Amino acid sequence: MASEDGEVVRNKQVIFRDFVSGFPKETDMEVRESTTKLRLPEGSSGLLVKNLYLSCDPYMRTRMAKLDVPGYVDSFKPGSPITGYGVARVLESGHPNFKKGDLLWGFTGWEECSIITAPETCFKIEHTDVPLSYYTGLLGMPGMTAYAGFFEVCSPKKGETVFISAASGAVGQLVGQFAKLFGCYVVGSAGSKEKVDLLKNKFRFDDAFNYKEEPDLDAALKRCLPEGIDIYFENVGGKMLDAVLLNMKLHGRIAVCGMISQYNLEQPEGVHNLMNLVLKRIRMEGFLVFDYYHLYPKFLEMVLPQIKEGKIVYVEDTAKGFESAPAALIGLFSGRNVGKQVVAVSHE
Amino acid sequence: MASEDGEVVRNKQVIFRDFVSGFPKETDMEVRESTTKLRLPEGSSGLLVKNLYLSCDPYMRTRMAKLDVPGYVDSFKPGSPITGYGVARVLESGHPNFKKGDLLWGFTGWEECSIITAPETCFKIEHTDVPLSYYTGLLGMPGMTAYAGFFEVCSPKKGETVFISAASGAVGQLVGQFAKLFGCYVVGSAGSKEKVDLLKNKFRFDDAFNYKEEPDLDAALKRCLPEGIDIYFENVGGKMLDAVLLNMKLHGRIAVCGMISQYNLEQPEGVHNLMNLVLKRIRMEGFLVFDYYHLYPKFLEMVLPQIKEGKIVYVEDTAKGFESAPAALIGLFSGRNVGKQVVAVSHE
Repeated sequence: MASEDGEVVRNKQVIFRDFVSGFPKETDMEVRESTTKLRLPEGSSGLLVKNLYLSCDPYMRTRMAKLDVPGYVDSFKPGSPITGYGVARVLESGHPNFKKGDLLWGFTGWEECSIITAPETCFKIEHTDVPLSYYTGLLGMPGMTAYAGFFEVCSPKKGETVFISAASGAVGQLVGQFAKLFGCYVVGSAGSKEKVDLLKNKFRFDDAFNYKEEPDLDAALKRCLPEGIDIYFENVGGKMLDAVLLNMKLHGRIAVCGMISQYNLEQPEGVHNLMNLVLKRIRMEGFLVFDYYHLYPKFLEMVLPQIKEGKIVYVEDTAKGFESAPAALIGLFSGRNVGKQVVAVSHE
Repeated sequence: MASEDGEVVRNKQVIFRDFVSGFPKETDMEVRESTTKLRLPEGSSGLLVKNLYLSCDPYMRTRMAKLDVPGYVDSFKPGSPITGYGVARVLESGHPNFKKGDLLWGFTGWEECSIITAPETCFKIEHTDVPLSYYTGLLGMPGMTAYAGFFEVCSPKKGETVFISAASGAVGQLVGQFAKLFGCYVVGSAGSKEKVDLLKNKFRFDDAFNYKEEPDLDAALKRCLPEGIDIYFENVGGKMLDAVLLNMKLHGRIAVCGMISQYNLEQPEGVHNLMNLVLKRIRMEGFLVFDYYHLYPKFLEMVLPQIKEGKIVYVEDTAKGFESAPAALIGLFSGRNVGKQVVAVSHE
């Protein structure tokens, strides 16, 4: 079915139903079949893209709530498709940075075809001798988050001790590998034996523990890091943060990337040991990757050779097909995924 | 009564009885009359001093507990005199930096005469055209704390909004005045109408509130700082910190100087809103003045003219006589003092 305004095609979408409190469910989203014209609107400076991979990231939980934080990402719009990072192929371009056929990663919609209205925030994919899905993880937002969080926020020094929570996730597995290559002693926590094995054997962490099997997190940290922690890469918040504060060393640094253990609570847990910030002169800094994207070329220059030489590895958990997207996203919050959760929506 | 080993004189002391949990009491200390020889031990490189002013500072509460934090100040020793900052006159010197008759400020004992074993940590007082007691406050540790905390830790910019808790205290009143002179909009909280009046009228804060009369600290902050807070100078912790986190602006900074509201609790209160560190990319940094004493000459160069020109004022609460010291120290924790709490032990 074609017209002079472009072919009209089927366009499956994952629609966000309404704001969520508590634990999100698959039914907070709905897969709906819609249609779209395969043509940019007249005069558009956007891009019409076909989405290939969709990225499931913990920060998306914050967007399921009605947030009003200027400078943070907007909440999802009830009745509209979920938006997030993805890898896509340009079908039509109204923007000088991109042409038909280009591959890109950036903010797109959870639908088969999307119109990207801010192409200047997307990155053209130049290196295709790596799995394309890596641009939702290792070579995309989570990779840059790990890189900027570790090298820019943590101010690491060789020989320092580094602790990472949610360490087998999209970001954590990279922070640990970057820290090891940099010359730090690296310990991670994760939520299953399988994940702990990955940390120790695949990502070559010096030590790791399953937080679900530790009755006393303080004791677990003291066992793995008897000298204390110079750098904490914070992904979980709550009780783990409290235990870490007791084990930080003088002039330690805490990069706060996220607090996934808190996102589904009606009221976040209280953190009691903040006085350690003073006693040990600790810097605790929240950061968002948006502030560091200017470093992306420098990051690629470092990481692409490391991938090719096998110095950096990456574990992905790939959900196949568009219909699997809601469950894949929800699975993040029970830790069902092993490694970076991505949805493969099309092989083109 | 004299001998070749030096005259033996009366030496009143404030003895620390035993480690404290919960709210400290005057009876956790004991004023005891002892004697001492007015002579340094043979070969000593220390100083024999006569104490003139003793400084009561909130951080001393942390030293009443059995703490084991490497790099922090030691706990008090049960059965020995309290130690802390003071102003003293040198009676005999075994150290090349000082000679008999010099005035100094630094770490000394809560007793009439003390032997200072680490004179290199003391500062010689060169400017005596200001009240000597100022060297326990404005020109001593609290002054340097305010200066370093504001200018070095908070990274202020002209026109930013600054909120200070415990704002009429030894440090807070100075942070507010430094921030005003620097060109910031300054709001403070304190615990009585008298203190709030001081903030507004004497220290020229832009606004101030009595936290004890605010049923909702979040609402009080929104009323006084509707645009939000760029810089929070944290002296109290607990509920105030939680309310501040809700009101911080993007890229805000929190300098954590102390958490006086928490020191006497068996278990510190939980802080729930730390996720704001990420959402707003906030840096929260604990600091101790010890790391900044190299800036003392620069600080004096700034502040001495400001004092002479009346641009900086300072309010002290002076307890008179050695016997008043325990009550003066305890009074800090109920906010009995108005301004910097100092004990005048001798007019020489």
